[in-house]
Amino acid sequence: VDNFRVPIALLTDFGTRDYFVAAMKGTILKIAPTVQIIDITHDVAHQDVRSAAFILQACYRDFPEATVFVCVVDPGVGSSRRAIAVESANRVFVSPDNGLLSFLFDHETERAKIYELTDRSLFARDVSNTFHGRDVFAPVAAHIVAGVRVEEAGCPIIDPVRLHVPLPGRLDAEQIQGEIIHIDHFGNIVTNFLPNLLTREPIFEINGVMIKRFVAYYSEAEPGELASITGSAGFVEISCNLGSAAGVLKAKVGDKVILRNMRA
Amino acid sequence: VDNFRVPIALLTDFGTRDYFVAAMKGTILKIAPTVQIIDITHDVAHQDVRSAAFILQACYRDFPEATVFVCVVDPGVGSSRRAIAVESANRVFVSPDNGLLSFLFDHETERAKIYELTDRSLFARDVSNTFHGRDVFAPVAAHIVAGVRVEEAGCPIIDPVRLHVPLPGRLDAEQIQGEIIHIDHFGNIVTNFLPNLLTREPIFEINGVMIKRFVAYYSEAEPGELASITGSAGFVEISCNLGSAAGVLKAKVGDKVILRNMRA
Amino acid sequence: VDNFRVPIALLTDFGTRDYFVAAMKGTILKIAPTVQIIDITHDVAHQDVRSAAFILQACYRDFPEATVFVCVVDPGVGSSRRAIAVESANRVFVSPDNGLLSFLFDHETERAKIYELTDRSLFARDVSNTFHGRDVFAPVAAHIVAGVRVEEAGCPIIDPVRLHVPLPGRLDAEQIQGEIIHIDHFGNIVTNFLPNLLTREPIFEINGVMIKRFVAYYSEAEPGELASITGSAGFVEISCNLGSAAGVLKAKVGDKVILRNMRA
Repeated sequence: VDNFRVPIALLTDFGTRDYFVAAMKGTILKIAPTVQIIDITHDVAHQDVRSAAFILQACYRDFPEATVFVCVVDPGVGSSRRAIAVESANRVFVSPDNGLLSFLFDHETERAKIYELTDRSLFARDVSNTFHGRDVFAPVAAHIVAGVRVEEAGCPIIDPVRLHVPLPGRLDAEQIQGEIIHIDHFGNIVTNFLPNLLTREPIFEINGVMIKRFVAYYSEAEPGELASITGSAGFVEISCNLGSAAGVLKAKVGDKVILRNMRA
Repeated sequence: VDNFRVPIALLTDFGTRDYFVAAMKGTILKIAPTVQIIDITHDVAHQDVRSAAFILQACYRDFPEATVFVCVVDPGVGSSRRAIAVESANRVFVSPDNGLLSFLFDHETERAKIYELTDRSLFARDVSNTFHGRDVFAPVAAHIVAGVRVEEAGCPIIDPVRLHVPLPGRLDAEQIQGEIIHIDHFGNIVTNFLPNLLTREPIFEINGVMIKRFVAYYSEAEPGELASITGSAGFVEISCNLGSAAGVLKAKVGDKVILRNMRA
Repeated sequence: VDNFRVPIALLTDFGTRDYFVAAMKGTILKIAPTVQIIDITHDVAHQDVRSAAFILQACYRDFPEATVFVCVVDPGVGSSRRAIAVESANRVFVSPDNGLLSFLFDHETERAKIYELTDRSLFARDVSNTFHGRDVFAPVAAHIVAGVRVEEAGCPIIDPVRLHVPLPGRLDAEQIQGEIIHIDHFGNIVTNFLPNLLTREPIFEINGVMIKRFVAYYSEAEPGELASITGSAGFVEISCNLGSAAGVLKAKVGDKVILRNMRA
């Protein structure tokens, strides 16, 4: 065990003020001393599995093949909820079985292999009831980058928990209703509309406001102007050039978004 | 100096908006080019040595042996306060001599070796009066992972500054009074009670509210219910399932916590 | 491509809640699998090029030679603004051409070499209009640490965008007027006065308040006392021992600072 050429990527709601992330990283380095550990984010909203899934989905393909992702948003820690590892897209994901990884089951063409983590020899010697990030998921991930095969870590399962993923639906001949699935650091509003739904001049409505401009890049809009745009996570976004679209529209995750195919 | 198999771990109150942490990391990499640098946290409350000590104490054993910890919460930077390195628990810690590391002197069975950092050849060429994280602690830590022995960095001392650590005390035959020592990212309240003090049905009181439920894992409590639990830092915590116990109880560090051994 | 002995350092306004930084890091590791990636900060105020320039200027010399800096504060992403790489001070910097790097053109004695990034074979296969951090700057930086020479990445240019940098100016025989260029995590106020301007007993005025004390280190002032000090970024700062000078003075970036050379 000497050279670790793939990273371990961490995604949690543990924040960055506490010892939680450090405890996970130290635990990993005890097992895999030189592996590079990458933070995806630790600022997922508390126990918001859906938000964690969005962030992971938006970036996991940017990582090298064989990367091991440790994704811990875990309100059920210590209960009977399962811990799983998933092989999909030539990468490995460990997580509580709470739906965080279910987009992998739906979107990848090759069938994901899903295992319940049952080999306690890969866990910490004493497993707490409150911190499986440190005691289960970090050590299992480190053992996998150090050479343990995923199928050695547990037993195959076929019934993982799945998140309900909202899809846009047709309201009538001229309107499709979707919703806001994420608001980013800049206040850009990420919708669940895929760009291939759009006509050349789409009109969106959020909280009673019409967004009639569609732009190719943010600064094509006037300063302060709202516009729709194809965002970097693969979805249509509503942005405000040099401002916060979410602030202007008082928008939040879950709010409805209406697409009118035709210009009025 | 080619392979660095142990990490350097950083713990500061420098925040993550400024150049402070980057300056420390760059300085380290000039001396130890491939060492992995791990952030414990940089969000310690300003100049709160006690909070930094809690976080370090909660995770240092999770790191590999020989890890070098750089712990800089340093209101006295530039004054005559000493800079120290401590060998303890098979790890190395550098810090201002302000009590941040004193738990190492109290809790480790093997005696800690404590040195005042006096070898200025290990410091930056020009040492500022305002930023010893960059000019003293980072370069000394890097030289240590690059092969300098701790005893070469300075002179042994026997009188390091010690923090006063509050311990729970008996109020009467039925009550013990402790206090809140940390509130975590989730709003869990960390007390200074060790789990071995607890009867099977402990009752806690914080700010006039009784907490009668004791659970093994967070979600064993009802949503919104307060409960005591053995936390992952080794202390009894008060948590609120799917909520913030500190928010519900308007609790802050230093507030009293009363344990009643018997159910009323 | 096996050993990467120099780091890539990232400086953005992307925040740490989203997938943006992770996408950049994953992209880098696909090209340069074991390079160490250092975060300078991702908390630059939204689209504040000047603030990013200050932070970079304050720490880039602390990094090893040959470090590659990826600096992305990019309100014009997707527009016709150029992407550039700069060789200066024996280090490499990639960034949108928006002035973020212009201090390198002004301050380094050796002339900076500036290239427009034009070799699309170094970019992501599909370049979005909204996220050049991932699609342009991260892959170019990774190719450079992996061995591509900067001059292979593009064409020399001589007309990069330059930031206007405010300099202190004389008001009359006894007063010089400068301004606040940064407020740090502790509330220290960074001015654009260089320490060599100071007499032994400088008096500063900010927002009508006189600061008559000059100290060598923070805790030389009384708790709560305002004082001027030579800061670690090379400029005169106004600090408040154990407090926030910016809070006390209600100061913000751009506010005027007056220096009186003589004690009144």
